[in-house]
Amino acid sequence: MKKKRKSSGIIIIGNEVLSGKTLDTNSNFMCKELFKIGISCEEINSIKDDEKTIIDKINIFKSKFDYVFTSGGIGPTHDDITSLSIAKALNQKLILNSEAKLRISKHYSDDILTEARLKMAFMPENAILIDNPVSVAPGFYVENIYVFPGVPEILQVMFKDFVISLDEGYRYFKRTISTHLSEGIIGDYIARTQKKYENIEIGSYPYFKKNSFGVSLVLKGENEIEVKNVCDEIFEYIKIQNGNPQLF
Amino acid sequence: MKKKRKSSGIIIIGNEVLSGKTLDTNSNFMCKELFKIGISCEEINSIKDDEKTIIDKINIFKSKFDYVFTSGGIGPTHDDITSLSIAKALNQKLILNSEAKLRISKHYSDDILTEARLKMAFMPENAILIDNPVSVAPGFYVENIYVFPGVPEILQVMFKDFVISLDEGYRYFKRTISTHLSEGIIGDYIARTQKKYENIEIGSYPYFKKNSFGVSLVLKGENEIEVKNVCDEIFEYIKIQNGNPQLF
Repeated sequence: MKKKRKSSGIIIIGNEVLSGKTLDTNSNFMCKELFKIGISCEEINSIKDDEKTIIDKINIFKSKFDYVFTSGGIGPTHDDITSLSIAKALNQKLILNSEAKLRISKHYSDDILTEARLKMAFMPENAILIDNPVSVAPGFYVENIYVFPGVPEILQVMFKDFVISLDEGYRYFKRTISTHLSEGIIGDYIARTQKKYENIEIGSYPYFKKNSFGVSLVLKGENEIEVKNVCDEIFEYIKIQNGNPQLF
Repeated sequence: MKKKRKSSGIIIIGNEVLSGKTLDTNSNFMCKELFKIGISCEEINSIKDDEKTIIDKINIFKSKFDYVFTSGGIGPTHDDITSLSIAKALNQKLILNSEAKLRISKHYSDDILTEARLKMAFMPENAILIDNPVSVAPGFYVENIYVFPGVPEILQVMFKDFVISLDEGYRYFKRTISTHLSEGIIGDYIARTQKKYENIEIGSYPYFKKNSFGVSLVLKGENEIEVKNVCDEIFEYIKIQNGNPQLF
């Protein structure tokens, strides 16, 4: 039986994103992976490494979405305050998670198990670990909040691996048509078509390449045949307009 | 005289970002440009092309920050609803802006001035235009909300050009030290140093390259000499630890 699509929100935590030093690619990676298993991402929010800001945002997101994913701020340094802030948001104690400590201890020999590294084993008391095959220090989840690191090379492996477990069998279908006709030319037609088929979501995305431009139209819907039919209809229209439609 | 640093928030509008289809690079570009003129970006929020969502977010951001910048949703198609939503959020009428219409009409000959293209000249009644040297159709600002398109090639030119006019002479100073020592090794020392110098913000950013890793430490502050002194102190410490510090 098809289930209702679950919603999610992503919180990116880190001053480096807001100063422009770092281009956030983590949210895009997570959105793609969520899309694959049919979880909808409703909102992405990049915020500072600031305790009150994190607490407020966690509280808003946890009641707004089925799943909340965070990235950043669980490393070993003084500006890594995500775990503490989440514990406070949920009125839980921040405790040394013994399983996390064990994994980190095994990874580092005694003389380099610094206080800073041990910091990564402190989590809200009800945290359940998320495996980290890259650099060992685990992420965790607690209530509906799923906590991942900020380093893309680590996040990507952990997220891809973990998110599969959330797959609840929901699927939708997608088709993409591109044309060299501009939005200004086909916009009116597309608007009429969108009105006609309310179950299909038609997105219109202009592109600019070297010496050429055009539009990609993305059709999404829960009914495969309906998506195909509307796609065929738009394809034919663009063809008649000499728009050289391409299907993806 | 040095002025107080102004705050800003960025709203990225578009389903394509939330589905993972498009990697948002606009907010990163805007953050960098804002950073250069000393306007702080406090929050980035990516949201759907949904009227109620846009209205709510505009109302929250406009009272929270000195400047609100939006990107996306001002093109010619049915899913471009940013201008209408902002007008509604501010209780203003959406009207045909005669100057915007003139510019768009000049650019397109009569036979291709479609209804879809004309749509781009509809703006909140008190809107003031922001020039678009790339594709003519202007952005606008109204109250403290600055509205830009979503296509990066257009946004970048418009934003860079416009944002200079907001420069109010605030400056801060930044230094970066990198080392091959890991956060786990230097984290305790950096935490102590951060505590000692409260006027300086020390960010710690691990990096992973092919066959190597390490940390970049970014120091920021309003007093150039203080930033330099703290930087020198950390540099010396890393040198003694054989961490091969590099200054940027």
